[in-house]
Amino acid sequence: MRMSQLFLRTLRDDPADAEVPSHRLLVRAGYVRRAAPGIYSWLPLGLKVLDKVEAIVREEMDAIGAQEVRFPALLPREPYEATNRWTEYGPNLFRLKDRRGTDMLLGPTHEEMFALLVKDLYSSYKDLPLSLYQIQTKYRDEARPRAGILRGREFVMKDSYSFDVDDAGLEASYAAHRAAYVRIFDRLGLDYVVVHADSGAMGGSASEEFLAVAETGEDTFVRSPGGYAANVEAVTTVVPEPLPYDDVPPAHAERTPATPTIETLVDHLQEHFPRDDRPWQAADTLKNVLVVLRHPDGTREPLAVGVPGDREVDPKRLETQVAPAEVEPFGDDDFAAHPTLVKGYIGPGVLGTDSASGIRYLVDPRVVEGTRWVTGANEEGSHVIDLVAGRDFTADGTIEAAEVRAGDPAPDGSGPLELARGLEMGHIFQLGRKYAEALGLQVLDENGKLVTVTMGSYGVGVSRAVAAVIEGSHDELGLVWPRELAPYDVHLVAAGKDPAILPAAEQIAAELEGSGISVLLDDRPKVSPGVKFKDAELLGMPTIVVVGRGLADGVVEVKDRATGERRDVAVDALVGELRGTCR
Amino acid sequence: MRMSQLFLRTLRDDPADAEVPSHRLLVRAGYVRRAAPGIYSWLPLGLKVLDKVEAIVREEMDAIGAQEVRFPALLPREPYEATNRWTEYGPNLFRLKDRRGTDMLLGPTHEEMFALLVKDLYSSYKDLPLSLYQIQTKYRDEARPRAGILRGREFVMKDSYSFDVDDAGLEASYAAHRAAYVRIFDRLGLDYVVVHADSGAMGGSASEEFLAVAETGEDTFVRSPGGYAANVEAVTTVVPEPLPYDDVPPAHAERTPATPTIETLVDHLQEHFPRDDRPWQAADTLKNVLVVLRHPDGTREPLAVGVPGDREVDPKRLETQVAPAEVEPFGDDDFAAHPTLVKGYIGPGVLGTDSASGIRYLVDPRVVEGTRWVTGANEEGSHVIDLVAGRDFTADGTIEAAEVRAGDPAPDGSGPLELARGLEMGHIFQLGRKYAEALGLQVLDENGKLVTVTMGSYGVGVSRAVAAVIEGSHDELGLVWPRELAPYDVHLVAAGKDPAILPAAEQIAAELEGSGISVLLDDRPKVSPGVKFKDAELLGMPTIVVVGRGLADGVVEVKDRATGERRDVAVDALVGELRGTCR
Repeated sequence: MRMSQLFLRTLRDDPADAEVPSHRLLVRAGYVRRAAPGIYSWLPLGLKVLDKVEAIVREEMDAIGAQEVRFPALLPREPYEATNRWTEYGPNLFRLKDRRGTDMLLGPTHEEMFALLVKDLYSSYKDLPLSLYQIQTKYRDEARPRAGILRGREFVMKDSYSFDVDDAGLEASYAAHRAAYVRIFDRLGLDYVVVHADSGAMGGSASEEFLAVAETGEDTFVRSPGGYAANVEAVTTVVPEPLPYDDVPPAHAERTPATPTIETLVDHLQEHFPRDDRPWQAADTLKNVLVVLRHPDGTREPLAVGVPGDREVDPKRLETQVAPAEVEPFGDDDFAAHPTLVKGYIGPGVLGTDSASGIRYLVDPRVVEGTRWVTGANEEGSHVIDLVAGRDFTADGTIEAAEVRAGDPAPDGSGPLELARGLEMGHIFQLGRKYAEALGLQVLDENGKLVTVTMGSYGVGVSRAVAAVIEGSHDELGLVWPRELAPYDVHLVAAGKDPAILPAAEQIAAELEGSGISVLLDDRPKVSPGVKFKDAELLGMPTIVVVGRGLADGVVEVKDRATGERRDVAVDALVGELRGTCR
Repeated sequence: MRMSQLFLRTLRDDPADAEVPSHRLLVRAGYVRRAAPGIYSWLPLGLKVLDKVEAIVREEMDAIGAQEVRFPALLPREPYEATNRWTEYGPNLFRLKDRRGTDMLLGPTHEEMFALLVKDLYSSYKDLPLSLYQIQTKYRDEARPRAGILRGREFVMKDSYSFDVDDAGLEASYAAHRAAYVRIFDRLGLDYVVVHADSGAMGGSASEEFLAVAETGEDTFVRSPGGYAANVEAVTTVVPEPLPYDDVPPAHAERTPATPTIETLVDHLQEHFPRDDRPWQAADTLKNVLVVLRHPDGTREPLAVGVPGDREVDPKRLETQVAPAEVEPFGDDDFAAHPTLVKGYIGPGVLGTDSASGIRYLVDPRVVEGTRWVTGANEEGSHVIDLVAGRDFTADGTIEAAEVRAGDPAPDGSGPLELARGLEMGHIFQLGRKYAEALGLQVLDENGKLVTVTMGSYGVGVSRAVAAVIEGSHDELGLVWPRELAPYDVHLVAAGKDPAILPAAEQIAAELEGSGISVLLDDRPKVSPGVKFKDAELLGMPTIVVVGRGLADGVVEVKDRATGERRDVAVDALVGELRGTCR
């Protein structure tokens, strides 16, 4: 391919809306172009990379015996109604009506459709196990589409589904997918971790995420020295043993004027009610946070969450716990509707379904029986001290909503957690029988008895992978493609005005192509060598070959894009040498 | 691939809604499955064929230097608003709103998006010519989705667009696409014709359609012995010379009771007003047909169409002429609103924008000056005789809405037309500057002057091609794939209970695969040879090999699916022989 012909314009400036390197570079290097918010077109170079990712995914899925099919993106409402996802997906689902007024949707994932297809065609345990997959365009109406193709509203996914007659079968199908995913992400050259995941709205039991480690990732995960890894939503708190509280004095309300924050409260306690044993800490206080849950049916439910005062409520962990409900702020109107709640001084006394407010009250798992707390006394400028859980108050339950912090113990005892950020690249679920039950997917077992099929669901973000690879592989000059994904093996630059140069470059390009090495030839006339070099760095082919002044001496310059290493190679030796490098 | 593993169920019975062979067979043979009206899922075998069609199209587009890109299917409204297609597409366009209430659509074709992309990146005549293409999922909310994937609401199309600085460039780009299309449809093995087409709602000038000849086709086309070919919408009438009318007596209204139809009228004329020279014919009468046009903005306009009484108005030709307006019946309410119109006796006297009704009146091009007509006298039971066009009435214009009939002269004088039916498989347009003007796509020419780019637009129905091939290649037993499209080269049947048979078949399959011949091995236990043979015929691989009784004598049976020819081949010679057949 000749640069003079290639449909491409590189940009000198970053696009205004680009926050992350992959977005910035894909647009600047002319790989993709925005068509609408969160919706991108693939230009020739970008499409080549996307195709290569697809090919890797396809090979590894075929290798585990999964069979490729392709479902429509435009789907009927009914199956999604049967599983309640029509409602649960909320505003993330693109819904539309056809000319007859029939409700339809643009598929976010296809559990329902696959389950119905298998139900349609298969009826016996002998037909199972079965794994089907598709590489297909998906839709999610993200509230905040961002970061280019990292989080678009139209994107390419590989989704697959396994069908087994029993749990052992599901585990085997899950293990096969897990192994295929390891091979896929290895081949993509991603630095990734496999973490325990909360399966969230998908239901089901075992679930793991493949996260590409990236500072720009929107998922936070934890890992321990002993090998534990999980996304923060899935981290469970190590629950302390209950404490004896016979010696704890009765709870006593005290005047604590102007202490609406934890910090002001701790200072006030320290000054006016000093402890004998040690200074007061934020962790001694119990902070009660109010939110409103909006359920899929539109109803609003207030919720109080009690967490130790040294931790914030983590919005994502909270959202995961209350899904499919969405979390909204508890506003002034809500306070007005609940006059027993005194902003900044809310305590357990007015919380709980049996309390005056009637508001459901869930506390952090660390709030075990016998723990002593300073918390709001439900009166402006007043707090209660020595309020003992299990003696003076009992919540409606616990909730894993407090933030996870570096140094927290891993739930499996494998040491203190460290936090890092990642991009979700793959997700594997043991869905179980939830969808099969909702849709009546049953087969006859060996004894002629109808049994409900158990399903797994497995996704890879195919278009996202193009961006994720870049997040881990770029520099200040531009893209740096791993060989397996690069649009071309070699970027061949014809540099200089000597009339012998272009024909020589063309000759070299032909020889390289002839030996199976794909070449992007920068043959543009009247473009300076400097601009050509800059474009070559920006576009990111793994090997850059410069045909320039050295040609008179029979040499060309070969540069490794990743390491920056350059050396002169005799023209005669070039093909042989690059055949070794590129294959 | 083993049949015992393949995700497939063949059906004994035709699906209830299947009208055409391709629909019937694709569903029965387990290649596709309906997901919603007009919306299909591709099962493993079907997807393989679709991929092969895509590969052929891709190769031929690449061969003419077109560059592949991929646009989203979910598109913003604005560009389609600029060209008026948001409105003109009417109910055929899937429209939706995103979570912010922004109007979006599912792309039917992408002229606007490609024009905007080129405008975005290119600015000089030096950048042109340029041809871009995509193979992508498209959406049209058909009023009557029918015939399976022949006319679906979600389908795969190859659409390409050429960009040139002048008309000569456009003609060259058009010619290159035309040649590529000829190669594509040749390779698909289709029996097809290239016909002059009316470019309809797309605007533009030169336009040809590639029609697969098929009785089940919904397009009627004509061809002449001299090589003229056109779809009926594009046929122009050979206009007769004006006639002298000095000797024609004045028009005279006559009582013609109970003659509301052409047939009753001709009989009545023959009986009561016999001609001297010859009997009256239907062609002597002028039939005035009333319809209502619904314009894209929702307004309704009545229209009268006058055609010789021996021809009907062809709804498709009429629709093409009035597009983007749609044609609706002229109902009782409309008659009530126009009391001068007497049903069955409507004549030119009350028609025309300057008449009492004010209804626009367009006539067939055969109604030239001097032609004499019998037509309605606008009074119950009364007709006018000797009404001369140009003397006694003048219409508002002419319209090509009368049916085309076998025997009509070809417009280019190449002989009488014959009619046949076809499936539109490809369409190539010289769009011209309509879209570029609407969207401001200009480049600087050699003199530094801004000129509007001229575009071509070219489509291939990729998913439709899978069905079209079947319409031309099947028999009463099932599918008959041409080699280039078959999911597998060989269908290998292990037939019989002899325990040596299956291992032998597996061995043969491995050898064939080893020499590059793809094999579908029917290894199903407990399935009778008869059922296996039937499935092999239904699935339609070009070569069927049966490993059965002959194995004892060292032979297998090789059957050609298309010709039905069978012969025994020595096991040792099989690979060598099939290598010749299959490659």
